[in-house]
Amino acid sequence: MMAERVAVGVDIGGTSIKFGLVRDDGTILHQTSNPTHAEEGPDGVLMRVAVGVRSLPGMDQSGVAGIGVGVPGMMNRHGEICHPPNFPGWEVEPVAKKLRRMLETDLPIAVENDANVAGYAEAYAGTGSSDRDFLFVTLGTGVGGCIIQDGRIWHGGGGGAGEIGHITVDMHGQLCNCGSRGCLEAYIGQRYMSDLARTRLQRIPDSMLHAMIAAGEELSPKTIDEAAQSGDEFAVGFLAEMGEILGAGLASALNMCDIRLVIIGGGMSRADRFLLEPARKSLQARVLKSIAPYVELRPARFFNDAGMIGAALLAMR
Amino acid sequence: MMAERVAVGVDIGGTSIKFGLVRDDGTILHQTSNPTHAEEGPDGVLMRVAVGVRSLPGMDQSGVAGIGVGVPGMMNRHGEICHPPNFPGWEVEPVAKKLRRMLETDLPIAVENDANVAGYAEAYAGTGSSDRDFLFVTLGTGVGGCIIQDGRIWHGGGGGAGEIGHITVDMHGQLCNCGSRGCLEAYIGQRYMSDLARTRLQRIPDSMLHAMIAAGEELSPKTIDEAAQSGDEFAVGFLAEMGEILGAGLASALNMCDIRLVIIGGGMSRADRFLLEPARKSLQARVLKSIAPYVELRPARFFNDAGMIGAALLAMR
Repeated sequence: MMAERVAVGVDIGGTSIKFGLVRDDGTILHQTSNPTHAEEGPDGVLMRVAVGVRSLPGMDQSGVAGIGVGVPGMMNRHGEICHPPNFPGWEVEPVAKKLRRMLETDLPIAVENDANVAGYAEAYAGTGSSDRDFLFVTLGTGVGGCIIQDGRIWHGGGGGAGEIGHITVDMHGQLCNCGSRGCLEAYIGQRYMSDLARTRLQRIPDSMLHAMIAAGEELSPKTIDEAAQSGDEFAVGFLAEMGEILGAGLASALNMCDIRLVIIGGGMSRADRFLLEPARKSLQARVLKSIAPYVELRPARFFNDAGMIGAALLAMR
Repeated sequence: MMAERVAVGVDIGGTSIKFGLVRDDGTILHQTSNPTHAEEGPDGVLMRVAVGVRSLPGMDQSGVAGIGVGVPGMMNRHGEICHPPNFPGWEVEPVAKKLRRMLETDLPIAVENDANVAGYAEAYAGTGSSDRDFLFVTLGTGVGGCIIQDGRIWHGGGGGAGEIGHITVDMHGQLCNCGSRGCLEAYIGQRYMSDLARTRLQRIPDSMLHAMIAAGEELSPKTIDEAAQSGDEFAVGFLAEMGEILGAGLASALNMCDIRLVIIGGGMSRADRFLLEPARKSLQARVLKSIAPYVELRPARFFNDAGMIGAALLAMR
């Protein structure tokens, strides 16, 4: 009988760092979290990572296969993390090297972009575990993603491939924070979507979203989906439009990379009926006829813990 | 002293098949061409390839490193060529296997998509020969391309990556032959561009293009570029708009694949001032800030013979 394989997964987020002992099937055996205190700069944050890892139960025993870390910054081709937004003082950080010194360990340390590890979790223990090639897209504040090719994270030319959020869907469209116009993220990124809905709602006095907001709920993709589930006509139409836009961006990516499977993670991956189903229709209508019969769009298995789980799985390789 | 390395390059086009003996620096030592007769079906066409290859001078001697063939169809993951448009009777063709049988040779036979071999020519003997990663785009009747990653053709998930022509630039825009809307090709593909110019010209009676057409010239991207070079205001503005659209499509691809260099081949690669320069500006304005300082767009070195040269270079690997 083979011993079960376990690794440490760390997900460094803007406000908290998550730590987990994760089994190779993606099961979390133990998990904890600490505040990030990003204002302490890279060495401060990495020291908190080291302390958190050391305090995990079982770390002093053998049997842990490695330590994986997901970080919200672009990777370069040397595996360093570059300029994570909202992390003051981070330039080009050799995270693995620094952690190795702080932890004084010989265990393998794998460092990756956070969207990449979330995609990796799906590839090895999630919705994509029997597929070798897919596009992973995470719908949250931003729209990120990664390309899994032949079971591995594809890093593209410079190390940071997978920025599906900044594929153009309408070159004369909505201004995007990145400086361009009509990026996918400028419609289906959480804040953009909420802002657009807010503007549109001014002309729709009978939407139940007005009452939900008056009752203290925040206008967000999630509340819009709740309204759609309760039959709100505006919410249904609005999410269908967002799904159509999502499908258009996905079609560009699949055509370009000859990929046939999309796995959607992040906050809105649960909105299957009102967002993902219209996205499927739009994708199917727009993708090249040579791949259309094989194209599929599935919600991810993992949700909030995808990054931590994927980081641990990556460390097991 | 090393002997010079030579291989055979074959480029199967819709109307003619080109054959060449090519040196490893891209120099053509000998070249010839025969009609394709695509109506004879795959075996007829491949037999003509075999006959043409056999009749090349020096084929009976040692010293030829291999035979490379470019075909205008999508590759699948088994290296077979699928459904080349305008080639009746082609399904999924094991071109290499069939040619090996017809030629009764032990030489390596490399078969690739035609845009891929043209990109490969740039990677090994052209504008990209000192770059490991770039996007190659060919502007012709269609808009094709390939991704060169770490010096090799990147095949993506299914084998046919690089379909930059079917990246969306405006999801509600111009209808494309592929069935989608607002594809890059639906603007800068040769026929689309000519049709759009023809429509616009009806409102511009003083463009010199009217006189050029009256004198028997065909309205094409090339004639529009000639008019622009002669100072025609309409032509200059029209190509600038096409360049802006090209830049938008390229930005999506570079963001997605974290690539920083674009090499433009095909018919319009010579239109540097009026098409490529506006494309550079648009690309620079739209690409992610993290890669913008490194982004470059260059015309290709090879022109009509790119496919034949690239096929031969590929066979030398």
